[in-house]
Amino acid sequence: MSKMSLEGIEQAMLDDLRHRVVEVARGLFENKLVVSTFGVVSTRIPKTDCVLVTPSGFSKARLDKDNLIIVDLDANLVQGKFRPSVETPLHTYIHKRRPELSTVIHTHSPMACAFAAANREIPCVSAEQAFHLGGRIPIVRKYSLPGTTERTELENIVKALENIDAVLMRKHGVVVVGRTPEEALDTAIVLEDIATIALHSIVLSRPIEFSRRELKYLKDFKKTRYGQKLGTT
Amino acid sequence: MSKMSLEGIEQAMLDDLRHRVVEVARGLFENKLVVSTFGVVSTRIPKTDCVLVTPSGFSKARLDKDNLIIVDLDANLVQGKFRPSVETPLHTYIHKRRPELSTVIHTHSPMACAFAAANREIPCVSAEQAFHLGGRIPIVRKYSLPGTTERTELENIVKALENIDAVLMRKHGVVVVGRTPEEALDTAIVLEDIATIALHSIVLSRPIEFSRRELKYLKDFKKTRYGQKLGTT
Amino acid sequence: MSKMSLEGIEQAMLDDLRHRVVEVARGLFENKLVVSTFGVVSTRIPKTDCVLVTPSGFSKARLDKDNLIIVDLDANLVQGKFRPSVETPLHTYIHKRRPELSTVIHTHSPMACAFAAANREIPCVSAEQAFHLGGRIPIVRKYSLPGTTERTELENIVKALENIDAVLMRKHGVVVVGRTPEEALDTAIVLEDIATIALHSIVLSRPIEFSRRELKYLKDFKKTRYGQKLGTT
Amino acid sequence: MSKMSLEGIEQAMLDDLRHRVVEVARGLFENKLVVSTFGVVSTRIPKTDCVLVTPSGFSKARLDKDNLIIVDLDANLVQGKFRPSVETPLHTYIHKRRPELSTVIHTHSPMACAFAAANREIPCVSAEQAFHLGGRIPIVRKYSLPGTTERTELENIVKALENIDAVLMRKHGVVVVGRTPEEALDTAIVLEDIATIALHSIVLSRPIEFSRRELKYLKDFKKTRYGQKLGTT
Repeated sequence: MSKMSLEGIEQAMLDDLRHRVVEVARGLFENKLVVSTFGVVSTRIPKTDCVLVTPSGFSKARLDKDNLIIVDLDANLVQGKFRPSVETPLHTYIHKRRPELSTVIHTHSPMACAFAAANREIPCVSAEQAFHLGGRIPIVRKYSLPGTTERTELENIVKALENIDAVLMRKHGVVVVGRTPEEALDTAIVLEDIATIALHSIVLSRPIEFSRRELKYLKDFKKTRYGQKLGTT
Repeated sequence: MSKMSLEGIEQAMLDDLRHRVVEVARGLFENKLVVSTFGVVSTRIPKTDCVLVTPSGFSKARLDKDNLIIVDLDANLVQGKFRPSVETPLHTYIHKRRPELSTVIHTHSPMACAFAAANREIPCVSAEQAFHLGGRIPIVRKYSLPGTTERTELENIVKALENIDAVLMRKHGVVVVGRTPEEALDTAIVLEDIATIALHSIVLSRPIEFSRRELKYLKDFKKTRYGQKLGTT
Repeated sequence: MSKMSLEGIEQAMLDDLRHRVVEVARGLFENKLVVSTFGVVSTRIPKTDCVLVTPSGFSKARLDKDNLIIVDLDANLVQGKFRPSVETPLHTYIHKRRPELSTVIHTHSPMACAFAAANREIPCVSAEQAFHLGGRIPIVRKYSLPGTTERTELENIVKALENIDAVLMRKHGVVVVGRTPEEALDTAIVLEDIATIALHSIVLSRPIEFSRRELKYLKDFKKTRYGQKLGTT
Repeated sequence: MSKMSLEGIEQAMLDDLRHRVVEVARGLFENKLVVSTFGVVSTRIPKTDCVLVTPSGFSKARLDKDNLIIVDLDANLVQGKFRPSVETPLHTYIHKRRPELSTVIHTHSPMACAFAAANREIPCVSAEQAFHLGGRIPIVRKYSLPGTTERTELENIVKALENIDAVLMRKHGVVVVGRTPEEALDTAIVLEDIATIALHSIVLSRPIEFSRRELKYLKDFKKTRYGQKLGTT
């Protein structure tokens, strides 16, 4: 049990966050990124060292807000009736090392998992990938068995996430991160889309990847010209 | 006609079980594990030697509770207006040999069937498969034509199910078993997901399988740390 | 304009048949066997030499009963506000030569079309195909351009349909037939399912086909033991 | 800011057009031709040099009519609260050069994108493609990075669209055009369908393409005999 306290946290904000985590978890299921009880969503509670995380062994299709668990950054229980996901140590480790993030998602997205099982990075062969993710999807080859708490292995994943919001875990699945719960879900959806495109382009030929120069151009382009200026929507 | 009697069976329990079998059958259809009139669900009625089974030639999309048939463990009719599935002898044989199970499901899940048609086991290349199913999905190569009552062939399937809850029948389809109707459906859904991942990883490369040591670790891990402790949900 | 008359046809029966054709056409769309305005459904009006057929250039997703056209067995207009499908001569030719049938369906089912484009029969590698369709799906290699009225080409299709309810038209698509509108739709759905299985089994290996002996066994088995006895449902 | 004025435009017509663009954008999402915020729809406002275009960074699943932007043919803002799509210069360039068109659509349709990433045209191996699109889908190999305003690159796309309503942009995606918003959506849907068929036929073998003569025949056939005569529906 953690010594962390939830005193002083605004209940309306926390309730809204629970709602958003439940919706994002449902989004994983509806976009066919997980089946059965697989998949994890964790979100940092703003201005705290606490993380809201999905419970172990529950379908993402039908979570209730009360099913979510609150843990501290060492994965100790703070509040909740259930056991948190067995992948909680990985999630809290990322949250500890990346305090500016909001959300970490773990999925078994089938086409991305095919690359992970084949021990291959996802080559950057579509503008969608270049634009949204910024390049190749790296694979953490030192495979962490589910539920690992090995610091070196967790650190490998944090390192892979330094330059990109999505990584493959060899023979296992996908980790994506986001500045909001919805952004993390969006990236998980894009990842499976670009994995589908890349896999089928590999079937057709040996696709040519985006160059560093092109990726650099797109990064600047996205920052300055894509979407709406802050405050307009 | 069986000499088996249904006297003494609680009607509310039986009615609830009929409802669950109908829902699980619909789940096979909605998860695209069967089309047309294919697929079979059979569930042992607790504390009896009777089995509830789906009728022959009916779509799994729209069964009524009254469409289900009750047979004994030798596949003889006990109650019901319709002929049971032609695969009933296989189902009752498994129920007889595995009294601790609840449910047997037969599907034509497309990606799993592709492995069955290709005469290949599904290699264990994803954590999802290692974790949920425990290893490779075996294939019963001595093919039983639909509706077989050959004891050796039925025994081959029972043998293959000893260490794993899912097997492929060569050129035919899939048999999965579960401790509840819902668990069997869940395993059928996971099986098609891992077949999809494995097939596409084979397209990409020659994937490396989980080792015995890893599988052993995951088995213990699942037993002790996954999901909720009994009585908590 | 045909000299055929619709006098004496029971309106309630005809109205019911129109409804069924509209439903079957929608089924083609919902099962993703056609997109856009592709696909044709034609049904013989019992006890007449007239055929109900879908109009040219309409989406199958949203037909009204009044959109259907009635033609005679030489594809001449009998009744209707619209032009019939450009494939009407093929449909009426099949109806003329196979008076015992009810319905002919033409689709562009993607996986079956992949075989048609690749100029390959669909090998019989799954029990589903052996059981439901009875063997390999033949391909009519002498390709008929859409809308053909060439007697030899139409005859080739009739010949291919003699032993099986589904054929591929090279580089074009699929023709299936049924004893009822619903049976033809069911066969069209099964055909795409078995094409999906066969294609992916070919990706995995060189699958082994069902033998003549096995196919013969299954044919007898289906006739005598599958589904319900007449009059029981 | 453009000097273009919207005075004199009938508001009911403009409102209807906004509604149709929103519906077509939703159609891209529902047919899985785009994910996330990708995809663009632009429609010329009849009798003006103005174009209605979707905003940058919005999901196509849930646009409001008020989210749309009006720009002139040089991509300058005429009316609207948001930034237009970053691909607006490509769209207005096509509209300027092809005044007879109504709508330009850009998607990341996965199977078409696989061809684009593999740097391959889509061969014309199905009647659906021959009939609806008239032949091979060309690929503009000189890749325009997203948001390009390079005249030569834009001109390459216009040139590729001269003989066909759909082109691939290498490593990027798809551009389709239509005489109405709905026609452009329909062509985008057909394009992904024929890409799916062609890709899987390539997996199965080396498919044989339609000849020039066949394509010519189908073009005439479509013009004179397909669909309904004007004024009948």
